[in-house]
Amino acid sequence: MVSFDPWLIAPVSSVISIGLGLFLFKHVSGKDAGTDRMKQIAGWIQEGSRSFLKTEYKYLGIFVAVMTVTLSALLGVRIGITYVFGTVLSALAGVIGMEIAVKANVRTANAARKGGLIEAFPIAFRGGAVMGLMVVGLALAGISIVYWITGDPDILLGMSIGASTLTLFMKAGGGIFTKSADIAADLVGKVELGIPEDDPRNPAVIADNVGDNVGDCAGSGADLFDSYIAAIMAAMILGASSQIPYLVTLPLVYAGLGILASIIGIALVRVGKEGDPGKSLNLGTYTTTLAFGVLTYAATWYLGYDIKIWYANIAGLLAGVVIGMTSDYFTSINRSPAIKTAEASQTGAAVSILTGFSYGLISCFPALLGIGIGSAIAFSFYGVYGIGIAAVGMLAIAGIIIAGDAYGPIGDNAKGIAEMAELGDDIVDITDEIDAAGNTTKAITKGFAIGAAGLTALALLASYQEIVMNLTGEPIVFNLMNPLVMMGIFIGMSIPVIFSAMIILGVSKNAYRMIEEIRRQFREIPGLMEGTGQPDYNACINIATVGALRELLPLIVFSILSTLVLGFVGGIHALGGYLSGAIFSGFFLAILMANAGGLWDNAKKYIESGYFGGKGSDAHKAAVIGDTVGDPFKDTAGPSLNTLVTVMSQIASLFAPLIITYALMG
Amino acid sequence: MVSFDPWLIAPVSSVISIGLGLFLFKHVSGKDAGTDRMKQIAGWIQEGSRSFLKTEYKYLGIFVAVMTVTLSALLGVRIGITYVFGTVLSALAGVIGMEIAVKANVRTANAARKGGLIEAFPIAFRGGAVMGLMVVGLALAGISIVYWITGDPDILLGMSIGASTLTLFMKAGGGIFTKSADIAADLVGKVELGIPEDDPRNPAVIADNVGDNVGDCAGSGADLFDSYIAAIMAAMILGASSQIPYLVTLPLVYAGLGILASIIGIALVRVGKEGDPGKSLNLGTYTTTLAFGVLTYAATWYLGYDIKIWYANIAGLLAGVVIGMTSDYFTSINRSPAIKTAEASQTGAAVSILTGFSYGLISCFPALLGIGIGSAIAFSFYGVYGIGIAAVGMLAIAGIIIAGDAYGPIGDNAKGIAEMAELGDDIVDITDEIDAAGNTTKAITKGFAIGAAGLTALALLASYQEIVMNLTGEPIVFNLMNPLVMMGIFIGMSIPVIFSAMIILGVSKNAYRMIEEIRRQFREIPGLMEGTGQPDYNACINIATVGALRELLPLIVFSILSTLVLGFVGGIHALGGYLSGAIFSGFFLAILMANAGGLWDNAKKYIESGYFGGKGSDAHKAAVIGDTVGDPFKDTAGPSLNTLVTVMSQIASLFAPLIITYALMG
Repeated sequence: MVSFDPWLIAPVSSVISIGLGLFLFKHVSGKDAGTDRMKQIAGWIQEGSRSFLKTEYKYLGIFVAVMTVTLSALLGVRIGITYVFGTVLSALAGVIGMEIAVKANVRTANAARKGGLIEAFPIAFRGGAVMGLMVVGLALAGISIVYWITGDPDILLGMSIGASTLTLFMKAGGGIFTKSADIAADLVGKVELGIPEDDPRNPAVIADNVGDNVGDCAGSGADLFDSYIAAIMAAMILGASSQIPYLVTLPLVYAGLGILASIIGIALVRVGKEGDPGKSLNLGTYTTTLAFGVLTYAATWYLGYDIKIWYANIAGLLAGVVIGMTSDYFTSINRSPAIKTAEASQTGAAVSILTGFSYGLISCFPALLGIGIGSAIAFSFYGVYGIGIAAVGMLAIAGIIIAGDAYGPIGDNAKGIAEMAELGDDIVDITDEIDAAGNTTKAITKGFAIGAAGLTALALLASYQEIVMNLTGEPIVFNLMNPLVMMGIFIGMSIPVIFSAMIILGVSKNAYRMIEEIRRQFREIPGLMEGTGQPDYNACINIATVGALRELLPLIVFSILSTLVLGFVGGIHALGGYLSGAIFSGFFLAILMANAGGLWDNAKKYIESGYFGGKGSDAHKAAVIGDTVGDPFKDTAGPSLNTLVTVMSQIASLFAPLIITYALMG
Repeated sequence: MVSFDPWLIAPVSSVISIGLGLFLFKHVSGKDAGTDRMKQIAGWIQEGSRSFLKTEYKYLGIFVAVMTVTLSALLGVRIGITYVFGTVLSALAGVIGMEIAVKANVRTANAARKGGLIEAFPIAFRGGAVMGLMVVGLALAGISIVYWITGDPDILLGMSIGASTLTLFMKAGGGIFTKSADIAADLVGKVELGIPEDDPRNPAVIADNVGDNVGDCAGSGADLFDSYIAAIMAAMILGASSQIPYLVTLPLVYAGLGILASIIGIALVRVGKEGDPGKSLNLGTYTTTLAFGVLTYAATWYLGYDIKIWYANIAGLLAGVVIGMTSDYFTSINRSPAIKTAEASQTGAAVSILTGFSYGLISCFPALLGIGIGSAIAFSFYGVYGIGIAAVGMLAIAGIIIAGDAYGPIGDNAKGIAEMAELGDDIVDITDEIDAAGNTTKAITKGFAIGAAGLTALALLASYQEIVMNLTGEPIVFNLMNPLVMMGIFIGMSIPVIFSAMIILGVSKNAYRMIEEIRRQFREIPGLMEGTGQPDYNACINIATVGALRELLPLIVFSILSTLVLGFVGGIHALGGYLSGAIFSGFFLAILMANAGGLWDNAKKYIESGYFGGKGSDAHKAAVIGDTVGDPFKDTAGPSLNTLVTVMSQIASLFAPLIITYALMG
């Protein structure tokens, strides 16, 4: 019936995606960047972002080299090579995302100045689309190349973990960087010296802007990049151990169709004269979802695949929609949780924090239900492979999700540039509208990303079990009443817990380092306070970058080593429990931190919009404290947990052969 | 070799315990209660506490009646009768604990006035000892009676769940009551009207003092009462399904010896002229632990029991010590976590809260490790029965643990009375020393209680599995890769999460109700503000009591119904996962909330002792916000979670026969 191998749709789609991404990159870059002042400010942010990446990649080079040598020595050169390949792809995606973000922001501001919303919005969105298209394009191209050369899904593990370790550095490192820059700039600037926010005299002000690009833009892209590869790989591994040959390549087919669906959605995102950017973004997402459902249904029917696989795929998609929509409800500025938290701020900061934290906890309920029921339904249709396909189903449309996500910080930066370059209230209002639409989509995409990562983690757990069964030739059961499994769960639970704690403490430590540097510059650079001296922006950026890595490196080594120690001491059953425990606490904390953080943020914004006393009131001051607590929750710790769990799962799968041979117990 | 049935040591010890408890009750009650002013203040607290209990028990009577009818109809009259018996015992323990607490507080203050620390300390401690001896005595007597009549450990489930449901009301209801009274009294008194704390004109001031007795004293005693019964019952059920007859009664033997060991420890707690109350309390605990180890070793050898059981018993004890000691480290005023949190308060409330929360998260690491490794070791010695015995081992010494725990609020109240009755600085200092010693032991006993409850929950999970296997005659495995089990875990995890959130929100709601009442009294009672009118203390207490129950009842019904719905829809495997999930998130949140709350409290106290600017500084204001956030964490939500999980586990076991027959799936 088919005359070509269906999985080739994956490389074809990925080439189209990369090509379209490059085209949009040139298109956006070709726009005018505005006045000299705008170019100067954008130049600082651009230079700072490049400086961040340069420093980060320099240090990561050493880490990757050590990992490559270790993996090659212990597990063979093929794993070593694919590991390097994965890190290079991840790094490339980071560079491209960052480059387009720092170009699109100023061009969006300028288009707002020249042609209003109708011209500015497409630039911001196309900037985001570049990121989306390049991330999924590069990822699927990478998978296709490795699979085409080796024909062995297990080898993809090397590439996937390469992407994951780098992502963890990008996301968590970027998260520490952005929040410590934020705190340091505020504390020295606003509190100690009394100069306004975003004042160019403050040496940390560019670091603060760079942080938005680093954490939100590159970080979020990297997050889905990592889940995307891991989900496809896990499904392929699960497919390989079945007796049905097409199950191995089916995830590639679905992923390829997901890219095509994303391109359809991206093409539809535009605003008319009276257009609403938020609605337009959502239209793109919904169209993509629908197109993906139709395309995969058609392909499943045409290629003669089992229709139950398609149902499992849809179960994942629906779980994602539930989690995304409830995240939206619990964080939206005009919904009861944010309003009640704002109201509680009138009774002081403590009650405000308790109320927001409580709603954050409650928001975990639909998410836990969604992932629990969604995975059970997917399983009921097609066993563990069904869970793998559910994860692939969610992540296949990552192209449009990342586009919407990366759009956010571009709009945010455009607004900042419009303000700093003093373009006037009208222009700032337009960029504000663009920015506000980004905040709405962000909550949905964040929930979606966490849900997708949760399903991916379950698929990775299943693939770990599959790998162990293939190696030992015996069935393996992770029985809760097996004391090693139970012990593993309790210990595994503690890893995301301790990781979040250390990373939050790391933000404070790193902020103190930056504060020292800002104070030094004000002490040593003549005329800085008077506005005649030039601050050394890059010195601040370098210190924050190196500091972030210094906080992070021991944590990442700890999480890798604890996985290996648990495995080699407790054996494969304990390790299965350990991975499950990490999924349980990691998923819970990720949802809690993302939603509580978003909720406090919007409760503050609700008061700022004039309720309960408005800006400057006691309620506002209380809400600001809540927002500051939420910042490292939602921008540093929370978003890193997905990737942490992915890294742990993949390390376990990768070392399974050695653990089976050498483990002390089990 | 033995001429009497060894398990009879249980009823004998329990009679000794109750006798000694009554003797100490008379002894403490016989002391002089001091000046008229002291008697008047103590009278208000006493009357208020009785009023709380009266209202609470009136409402609970209806709940118990409904439950009894339902259980009798569905599961037989024997379960109904033992259920009532369990609730009566629990209520009795609550009444006695409350009665002795409100007598001992004023007598401690008076003894401090008359004879100094050397006379005051024993009264406070003996007051606590009454609670400890009565709780374990009544519990073990109850178990002995039911077992003696029926000879069937399964029937104990009815009694145990009777005790647990009532405990949940006592603990969580008391927790809501005490914190809402605290917030309401502060907000109207200090903030709105500008009258000092503990001013008798404030209608909520007595409710605030009653709250200490209700939450800390009766609540904590009820907590261990419930775990104590549940652990012994679970171990007996696990023993009954083995082929070795003595395993059924062995938990009773160990529990009896635990009471004797506790009595030895209680007898040793005394201070000399230069004595240190804290050291003395710890000496009692350590001596009891040692005596219990020696006595059980001797009994195990003398009665010819398998020595491996004793090892499992010790594994539990050691896990408890690890959790207690690390809780102590993470919350102590002179340790790094509290000091660093105090230091961070200089940067504002947000950083203070983030730092304390982070250390709270880190403190979960040793606790999770302790319970994971402890239960695995216990299992390795004697299978699931080993886990049951590990829990019994920890809880057997509950007598001295409760004594130390109940001592705390007595000292706290003694200090309050000394201040309100204006006994002078010297006397207040003595009561302060007594109070401070209570805070140290409290952290240890709280960690110990959570650890014990964690092991008990695991034992209950094992007994649930055992009950299901006995009913179906087939082996049952809770396989993590069974989608129903995995779904159950995710849903089960959400119950403690949502329960904590709702209960924290309930505190605010209830505080608002009280605030309305306080405002009404100031509006309507003539001369109240001028000090000539008499406030209606009991109106405040009644409103807070009924309000607390109103917040709580739907939550308790929700947790029972969700267990049944999950069981009847998902079947026994899903229910096994569900119970496990509740254990995972419940244990984690309980440790986090207890330790973070204790830590913030002591960080504030550290600043108050003169560091980082001392009382009234910006750092102090920031730390007060942290402390207020921590209050419902450590005194309301955290301590209720143990009991919640116990109730859920027992409901599952109780309804297992019906679920097996009627479940939709599985």
